[in-house]
Amino acid sequence: MKKVSYEVKTRLSGTLARTGVIHTPHGDIQTPAFIVVGTKASVKSLTPEQVSSSGAQAVLANGYHLYLQPGHELIEKSGGLGKFMHWQGPTFTDSGGFQVLSLGSGFKKTLSMEIEGVSPDDVIAPRKERQAWVDNDGVTFKSYLDGSMHRFTPEQSIQIQHGIGADICFAFDELTSLMDSYTYQAESMRVRTQPWAERSLHEMQRLRKLHPERPYQAVFGVLQGANYEDLRRETAQWMADREFDGYGIGGAIEKERLGEIVQWCNEILPEDRPKHMLGISEPDDMFAAVEHGVDTFDCVSPTRVGRNGAFYTFEGRKNIRGNMYKEDFTPLLEGCQCYTCQNYTKAYIQHLFRAKELLANTLMSIHNECFIVGLVDQLRASIEDGTFYAFRDDWLARYYQ
Amino acid sequence: MKKVSYEVKTRLSGTLARTGVIHTPHGDIQTPAFIVVGTKASVKSLTPEQVSSSGAQAVLANGYHLYLQPGHELIEKSGGLGKFMHWQGPTFTDSGGFQVLSLGSGFKKTLSMEIEGVSPDDVIAPRKERQAWVDNDGVTFKSYLDGSMHRFTPEQSIQIQHGIGADICFAFDELTSLMDSYTYQAESMRVRTQPWAERSLHEMQRLRKLHPERPYQAVFGVLQGANYEDLRRETAQWMADREFDGYGIGGAIEKERLGEIVQWCNEILPEDRPKHMLGISEPDDMFAAVEHGVDTFDCVSPTRVGRNGAFYTFEGRKNIRGNMYKEDFTPLLEGCQCYTCQNYTKAYIQHLFRAKELLANTLMSIHNECFIVGLVDQLRASIEDGTFYAFRDDWLARYYQ
Repeated sequence: MKKVSYEVKTRLSGTLARTGVIHTPHGDIQTPAFIVVGTKASVKSLTPEQVSSSGAQAVLANGYHLYLQPGHELIEKSGGLGKFMHWQGPTFTDSGGFQVLSLGSGFKKTLSMEIEGVSPDDVIAPRKERQAWVDNDGVTFKSYLDGSMHRFTPEQSIQIQHGIGADICFAFDELTSLMDSYTYQAESMRVRTQPWAERSLHEMQRLRKLHPERPYQAVFGVLQGANYEDLRRETAQWMADREFDGYGIGGAIEKERLGEIVQWCNEILPEDRPKHMLGISEPDDMFAAVEHGVDTFDCVSPTRVGRNGAFYTFEGRKNIRGNMYKEDFTPLLEGCQCYTCQNYTKAYIQHLFRAKELLANTLMSIHNECFIVGLVDQLRASIEDGTFYAFRDDWLARYYQ
Repeated sequence: MKKVSYEVKTRLSGTLARTGVIHTPHGDIQTPAFIVVGTKASVKSLTPEQVSSSGAQAVLANGYHLYLQPGHELIEKSGGLGKFMHWQGPTFTDSGGFQVLSLGSGFKKTLSMEIEGVSPDDVIAPRKERQAWVDNDGVTFKSYLDGSMHRFTPEQSIQIQHGIGADICFAFDELTSLMDSYTYQAESMRVRTQPWAERSLHEMQRLRKLHPERPYQAVFGVLQGANYEDLRRETAQWMADREFDGYGIGGAIEKERLGEIVQWCNEILPEDRPKHMLGISEPDDMFAAVEHGVDTFDCVSPTRVGRNGAFYTFEGRKNIRGNMYKEDFTPLLEGCQCYTCQNYTKAYIQHLFRAKELLANTLMSIHNECFIVGLVDQLRASIEDGTFYAFRDDWLARYYQ
């Protein structure tokens, strides 16, 4: 059984930034790489060929959603996630830890939250009736689909991910919020997230032995610890001492401190393992993460904002519904090589949105995935040729002007 | 300016059935052919490449819808319908006559209606407040989008279609219903539909002279007359005596009498012009129409029923939501060469429907368009090799068993 492994290709001197390659049973991933999200075994409104032609190397699906619908047993019977959804490259699955708690407790993702100017709507938990209950053994939660009761333990999460069959799985962890106290963060990390990570790893080791005929599935340990340096360093050392195939850097992070927090983790984590950052796609976040040693990240944003009419340009995100585009017969982004920009005008895409034509979602998602995947590809090239900082400064100055 | 023209290739002896080719400025159409519908300049949920790979030769858009949104002037400025929507083959536009009256008067399409067992919901007009008023010069109607008042005359309809720039345009006509009396049908045909057809033709002739640089746009006269043999023969002769490039056989038709009605028209209409039948895709209707000399037809059904979960098989239409498909890892139709059947299982497509994933619409539409377009292609081949009746009898017996 060939393991999922990582090799460094080039390093940017004086930093943790590097390029490399992750080898998986379903192919290699050149890193840094943006991993496209296909939550429910479909990248929304795109065929796998359209995903692939956007330059995407791998797809990340979600264990929680696929457990509820159609069920991991069905995907297992079909031959695994890649075969099920007709995607031939590498696949990831998230553990469901984020979803059972964020969908269950009514608080939103906290990563991009700003403490100053934060909207209470975004952080006061529970906003709605609580739908999830955490104990030291796992999480009990109500299905968002039909209200039925379910329970995830680390073992259950790994059994689900094993059934789904992705190349890279994540350990089950507890989602915390920036509003939680230091005491809660520390306890959550030491009493739940870390023991759960170990139980996740052991469960996968047990399943690998039970099914030696199956392709190797990696387990990435997830680092929590919010904005606290001592907690982040402690958990990085804890994770480094165990046989994880890679790491997920997650949890509550203030946007302004993203680079710093990633650095604390990656100074300690072993160099020869890949590091994934969960749920980011904002260009400044991606530059900061890569500078401090992150290899891969994923985010739903490119397709989600696309379905809402937003498209990426070098001068920031614009909305196609704007009146100035009504008679604009140029592509979304001049010079862009994506299928959408090669063949369609802003005027046509605006028409599709106004007429509620489904093709609008497809065309916007293709452009946005292509833009973000392409940006990370350029970022990789800038590490290889040593122009990372110049590229970053020019690029970000133009984008956030 | 090269005209839109038609040449017969083979005839099925003893019938009006024939194969042939329609030459247009944007390419040839081998007939009989099923024309795919892209009402608002988009075949719903498909890229033009996906449309093309289903075997479709031409796309039909709608003058009424495109007039309201985004406006024919915008499409004209963009370089015409094909360029606007990135479709390189031949295009048709319907005149809007059907839509201003069906959307405005609250009665549904009457073609497939059965007089026996008809539901009053389908035919009592107006079901809702009347939104369209017919006079002998044209139709005044309220926009279904914003309630604003508009007026279509034959000249206006042709100006719209000229702006849109399709290769084949239809004359503006009055939609009647099977519930209208003989007296009304006769008056509508003689006082409105025929004079409007002549005005449509003259308006296009005027516009052709004004814009000699533009590709030729054909005008097809539309034959009304409901189920009445004398009216159908009268209008066929009237149309035959004028310089239409082809004909549309439309109007209120009982399904059981479709072949007979088409025959009355096509016995009289000139052999050297193409005949289009508006809005049919039911297999038995297509066989009957082709047997009696129809060359092309169009219908929204393959994509519309696909979005509702229905898919075509040789044993009739099935619905993918059925419980028996939950763990069915075979394609929608064994042996089908379409992209969907080559790459996806029923279990996966059912999952997409249950999870409300947009890709479901795309995959179903590809299969259904491919099935119907392919059926008409086989039908064409069966005329060429003289096996039409054997093919028809076998095919329909299996489909409607």
